[in-house]
Amino acid sequence: MIRFYNGLTLESAGLTENEVWVDGSAIRYVGLAREDMPAFEREVDLKGDLLIPGFKNAHTHSAMTFLRSAADDLPLQEWLEKQVFPREAKLTAESVAAFTKVAFLEYLAGGVTACFDMYYQPDAFVQVAKDWGFRAVMCESLTFGDDPGRVYDRYEKYNNMGPFVGYRLGFHAEYTNGLDTFRTVAEAAHHFKAPVWCHNSETKKETDECIARHGTTPTRLFEDMGLFEYGGGGYHCVYFTPEDMDIFARHGCYAVVNACSNAKLASGVFPLRLAVEKGVKLAVGTDGSASNNALDMFREMYLINVLAKLRESDAAAGDPALVLSAAVSGGARAMGLSDCDSIAAGKQADIVRIDMHKPNMRPVNNVVKNLIYSGNPSNVRMTMIAGRVLYEDGAFFVGEDVEDVYREAEKYTRQIVD
Amino acid sequence: MIRFYNGLTLESAGLTENEVWVDGSAIRYVGLAREDMPAFEREVDLKGDLLIPGFKNAHTHSAMTFLRSAADDLPLQEWLEKQVFPREAKLTAESVAAFTKVAFLEYLAGGVTACFDMYYQPDAFVQVAKDWGFRAVMCESLTFGDDPGRVYDRYEKYNNMGPFVGYRLGFHAEYTNGLDTFRTVAEAAHHFKAPVWCHNSETKKETDECIARHGTTPTRLFEDMGLFEYGGGGYHCVYFTPEDMDIFARHGCYAVVNACSNAKLASGVFPLRLAVEKGVKLAVGTDGSASNNALDMFREMYLINVLAKLRESDAAAGDPALVLSAAVSGGARAMGLSDCDSIAAGKQADIVRIDMHKPNMRPVNNVVKNLIYSGNPSNVRMTMIAGRVLYEDGAFFVGEDVEDVYREAEKYTRQIVD
Repeated sequence: MIRFYNGLTLESAGLTENEVWVDGSAIRYVGLAREDMPAFEREVDLKGDLLIPGFKNAHTHSAMTFLRSAADDLPLQEWLEKQVFPREAKLTAESVAAFTKVAFLEYLAGGVTACFDMYYQPDAFVQVAKDWGFRAVMCESLTFGDDPGRVYDRYEKYNNMGPFVGYRLGFHAEYTNGLDTFRTVAEAAHHFKAPVWCHNSETKKETDECIARHGTTPTRLFEDMGLFEYGGGGYHCVYFTPEDMDIFARHGCYAVVNACSNAKLASGVFPLRLAVEKGVKLAVGTDGSASNNALDMFREMYLINVLAKLRESDAAAGDPALVLSAAVSGGARAMGLSDCDSIAAGKQADIVRIDMHKPNMRPVNNVVKNLIYSGNPSNVRMTMIAGRVLYEDGAFFVGEDVEDVYREAEKYTRQIVD
Repeated sequence: MIRFYNGLTLESAGLTENEVWVDGSAIRYVGLAREDMPAFEREVDLKGDLLIPGFKNAHTHSAMTFLRSAADDLPLQEWLEKQVFPREAKLTAESVAAFTKVAFLEYLAGGVTACFDMYYQPDAFVQVAKDWGFRAVMCESLTFGDDPGRVYDRYEKYNNMGPFVGYRLGFHAEYTNGLDTFRTVAEAAHHFKAPVWCHNSETKKETDECIARHGTTPTRLFEDMGLFEYGGGGYHCVYFTPEDMDIFARHGCYAVVNACSNAKLASGVFPLRLAVEKGVKLAVGTDGSASNNALDMFREMYLINVLAKLRESDAAAGDPALVLSAAVSGGARAMGLSDCDSIAAGKQADIVRIDMHKPNMRPVNNVVKNLIYSGNPSNVRMTMIAGRVLYEDGAFFVGEDVEDVYREAEKYTRQIVD
């Protein structure tokens, strides 16, 4: 058993000075020091540092690290059609595994303990997750040309691969699929009583074209087709109307905010104030490194808040506590990892130690606002998943040499990008 | 002499594989390895890491660390009048020194080697700079009630305090001064042949009120009064008109961009594309921790670029190489530290080592874009000022225990904020 003491703990009800004891993969105890202390394998004196639930990156394309800084500052269509699609066509199982590992290292160094991924080569991807012990939930990525019937086999296969792998029904987006796909996925949702996910209203063009094509927004189209009977959600949701928000709220769907990607691609700014007014559940994601380019949940949380202020022309807009909760808890629930959503006895031990002894965290007037407005990955001292320390004090414990990971990724990148 | 080798160096003309040799406070040699190697005190194998000139934080109020996370998410006027001004009235020399030290630690951990500061208690502030060996240039902060004549004594005094301290003529802003102050400062500018600085066009309200009061924008008013005869510049410059940009370009004035502060206070977005079209010189600053809240030049550079994209609704807007140059070189020249503006023989050794072995820097498709779009302070391995290593691998070498610095800052913060 591992004991963390002499620090702060972010629990669902707020900050406490409780200790946290981890036993195997789970949290055994959260509370004050007791008379009847068990024998501990390791006792960590936090020296005032903060424990938080790990960040859940609720929308990403992890293996896109190979396109980091390879195709920036271009108009959206040119970027997709000339820089992204032709290169993605060259991906193999080996290269996806190599690129995924770089992303997982970045997640660990930034306090991310789970990702909700959508990409190619799912077998190669989940193998890395299993080998390293990183929580990876995949969203089905159906697009034109794919057989939508594959969701049945995949659902069974990937949801029975143990604690680090999951699979959720979905498809890429409205504009990359026809009604037949939506019908098949809706049937599967009813069959499995499962939520459905996709990119939704990321750009104005996409949203306008859906209205021209189907006479309604993507969100209402999906609701009309019965896709949200068991919940689910959307990635981006930048051009959501008040009615779209109502639909999401009614079905308990999650809007996953991708502020950095939407900014870098000049897509727009998520209407945070509207979403909060409408009671829509929120999660936070980085999107892939091609459009971000970092996989940094601190920067996402920061940007969601300050862009809300710019969008509303109101310095009082934004809500740091709510955005932090979305990043650590909302994301977990969105992905179906409700046993990883908080620091509480019985929950999985997916825990991050935040270094409060770095100058950007001082003085301490408000811990949560320090995290949101001043925090960055240099504040992550330790990342634990399922009770295992995978990152601590700059070192990775993933069973592979980091330099080997970089070498492989560089090799495949040069083959694809140059 | 210290030798850095086996890495990359960001020189004015671009990236090279040159070595850098540092002798005393200056750079002795930048070039390939040679036959006639001198004896080195220390040889640093960079292992592929990158050397860049230190970031120059070209607008800040360093000692405002005491208000970090103390007063966020409020409308601007309420923030200033209820949270900031009454607390600043309680500042003393001792507390300003303590708060300044926290800021300097954050600068060092983030690769910042010089700051252009405007605040209270200048003697306390410059003492920290001298004691630690951190480059601090002060901008005069004249406001209603101050004697503008003080600029003469201060100019002589602070510009003769050695290599780590400087003083530039200026005043707080148009809306906090009368015409008499501008006349006095203009006379001083002519007397010393010196540039003039101030906050300029930060908010729409301030700009509109100047037009109502004086019939012209702050920038044209300042030009009309002869304040820019020897250059200078402005902080923020969010509401600059095309004519204001022309005026700045004509006088070689610098616009210091403060993207994070302008976003958090919902002030607006700097018109980067217009400034570049008009040929205005640029520098980058964080503003103070009350309105940012981090003192993080990576986040500033990132935000300047992505906000330019959102402002123009064009993913091709922004210019990472130009913004990086503004942050490391433009700022130095703006502050009058032209001997600290680049890595070249004869220049001051103000150098930062960027860790290219962190996952957010991999793979390496484009080093500059990695820095701007993926970089964060965890990538700073070493910060050197005037040939002295003040920060390396998480440790500070400033002649004081960091925990003592934090304790003092917390003590004074509690006295003022609570």
